[in-house]
Amino acid sequence: MISRLKQILLFSLAALAGNTCMSQDIKEDFKPSVLNQPGQPYPQVNSQGYARFRILAPRADSVRVSLGLGGKGGTLLTKGEDGFFTGTTAGQMDEGFHYYHVTIDGGVFNDPGTLNFYGSVRWESGIEIPAHDQDFYALKDVPHGNVVQVLFPSKSTNTSRRAFVYTPPGYSKDANKRYPVLYLQHGWGEDETAWSNQGHANLIMDNLIADAKIKPFIIVMTYGITNEVRFGHMREFKIDTFQTVLTEELIPYIDAHFRTLANRENRAMAGLSMGGMETHTITLNRPEVFSQYALLSGGLYTPEELKDKTKPKLIFISCGSRENPDRVKQATDALKQAGYNVVSFVSENTAHEFLTWRRSLYQLAPLLFQN
Amino acid sequence: MISRLKQILLFSLAALAGNTCMSQDIKEDFKPSVLNQPGQPYPQVNSQGYARFRILAPRADSVRVSLGLGGKGGTLLTKGEDGFFTGTTAGQMDEGFHYYHVTIDGGVFNDPGTLNFYGSVRWESGIEIPAHDQDFYALKDVPHGNVVQVLFPSKSTNTSRRAFVYTPPGYSKDANKRYPVLYLQHGWGEDETAWSNQGHANLIMDNLIADAKIKPFIIVMTYGITNEVRFGHMREFKIDTFQTVLTEELIPYIDAHFRTLANRENRAMAGLSMGGMETHTITLNRPEVFSQYALLSGGLYTPEELKDKTKPKLIFISCGSRENPDRVKQATDALKQAGYNVVSFVSENTAHEFLTWRRSLYQLAPLLFQN
Repeated sequence: MISRLKQILLFSLAALAGNTCMSQDIKEDFKPSVLNQPGQPYPQVNSQGYARFRILAPRADSVRVSLGLGGKGGTLLTKGEDGFFTGTTAGQMDEGFHYYHVTIDGGVFNDPGTLNFYGSVRWESGIEIPAHDQDFYALKDVPHGNVVQVLFPSKSTNTSRRAFVYTPPGYSKDANKRYPVLYLQHGWGEDETAWSNQGHANLIMDNLIADAKIKPFIIVMTYGITNEVRFGHMREFKIDTFQTVLTEELIPYIDAHFRTLANRENRAMAGLSMGGMETHTITLNRPEVFSQYALLSGGLYTPEELKDKTKPKLIFISCGSRENPDRVKQATDALKQAGYNVVSFVSENTAHEFLTWRRSLYQLAPLLFQN
Repeated sequence: MISRLKQILLFSLAALAGNTCMSQDIKEDFKPSVLNQPGQPYPQVNSQGYARFRILAPRADSVRVSLGLGGKGGTLLTKGEDGFFTGTTAGQMDEGFHYYHVTIDGGVFNDPGTLNFYGSVRWESGIEIPAHDQDFYALKDVPHGNVVQVLFPSKSTNTSRRAFVYTPPGYSKDANKRYPVLYLQHGWGEDETAWSNQGHANLIMDNLIADAKIKPFIIVMTYGITNEVRFGHMREFKIDTFQTVLTEELIPYIDAHFRTLANRENRAMAGLSMGGMETHTITLNRPEVFSQYALLSGGLYTPEELKDKTKPKLIFISCGSRENPDRVKQATDALKQAGYNVVSFVSENTAHEFLTWRRSLYQLAPLLFQN
């Protein structure tokens, strides 16, 4: 578990460092990023995927943004006479969501222009490069489901824990209707807010339901690290404690407080990156709890691991084309040959980042709970 | 409306500037603020209400925190050889929640140690000075209600708008039970997240319900500025557009999607600061919609305004002792003499800040919906 997790983390950092490509002729059609704070004009993004930053720090000597050319430490901004530091990434960014921060005279802060998102074990700045397929996670004039914050009691960790529960549109209408449930985990350094804030999981579901592409289901998102882990000491992470919280405390709570179909057939687990590793381990430990498994940039299953266990109804494995898609394809082939129902998905021109996972959820959702 | 709002804003700034008092002998029992980001040791607070800051910026010349002695521009931190700027407020802070920011070489940023809260029309750093009565808004081992994010359609503003809905513990248990509703507004520069994040409205309710001090009700919180208002141009704020969203769009949506008692008797409106001004105006415009009104540091009612209108069942007026409590007391007396059911509350040793409003909600909730 730990060594695979390290691989993923290292790969993730490598992917982040390289997610720009050089180009010429920057078009001057920059617009504020959709993730800016209300009324904030910067950062901006142009139609080619360049990002431009503008930060006021009149008496600072050096302002650097962590996006752009990772190998060279990001984008160094240039100070103007008006006290604003400005600069444009040297290359085009991948489409989709990116975390970043700003280094002011050696200290790490956030860009005051943007909303913050929990990643890298801190609330970071976020920027959105409009994707050519962004329509599937756009806020549209369709019926919207809710995102419900619940505080559930956890005896094993001696506290109240938080989860977010997506309930589909119509949930409040028919008091007798029950729904399947997907348990959906975030990645390392993120928390239970990630799939809604960065992932737009609720909007992806609303749009799929409005288009009648899926049968409505509930999604539950909670924090995947439940023991004390010091920063930089991932070896201290214990999946056992999370497995207990998830299967012994959260699932019973959800089944008692929401109108779920409370059985294995109607329960799936998925996760991105570290959340995929958690999904892998927990579904193999407790195959009687979940019937459908999905790993998004987060490991693979082998036929050897699965044999002699209750057979999953579906395995879904995905990654970005800039990750290691061949490994996903090979694993999928091996599982298919062994008789498993496997679907793989590769997100084109994305790396270990949220557009990969938004697209993965969009591909996964129609496959789930097809009895 | 606008001139009163300006008064409140100016008063608010004056209160913020003066919310410390001098003292001697600082006790060295500093602990991390409960609002710090996970694992962050600073800022810290001691048992006397001093706050201490520590911010890394090795090559910066000047780091200043906006808390402390407002008249002198906050607390100037001192640079150490390790590259950290540190400093302690010159005086004790009021108990409760405070917004702040950090000025690094002339640029305004957030303290990377803290969580952020939407106030002053931006996501700001937040710090919590433990209050002697903090138990009433603490996270306890009691049944917890949910905070539900809803996206409701708004034809008048041509978009989907967000609201948060507190549903009490037990809401999911009895599909036939219906609840009264309090519409609760934030202040200027804040948004629909304020009453949950800064105000702990959900925890206040959970604790009151666990102690059987109130009959459970629903709280609805939405954004109170619904037309385009440029920064610094509060004259552009139009309450009419918000009144339309609230009474013609949000209330019908809530009544259709939650199990409410959908009548005037079981509907109240309250707000803090600017939200109090909104409550004042909208309840006077639409007395047939709400039967109970509450202004928290947000204006007063006069008997003249209320006469010839459907009589409110309850008026609640509150403020902090460092605001202008005499005006609240005088208005309360005048309303009582005119035959209204009025309750006033003054929060001891607080100003125009969230502890005043947490306490006000705690006082208000048991008075509501007492048929």
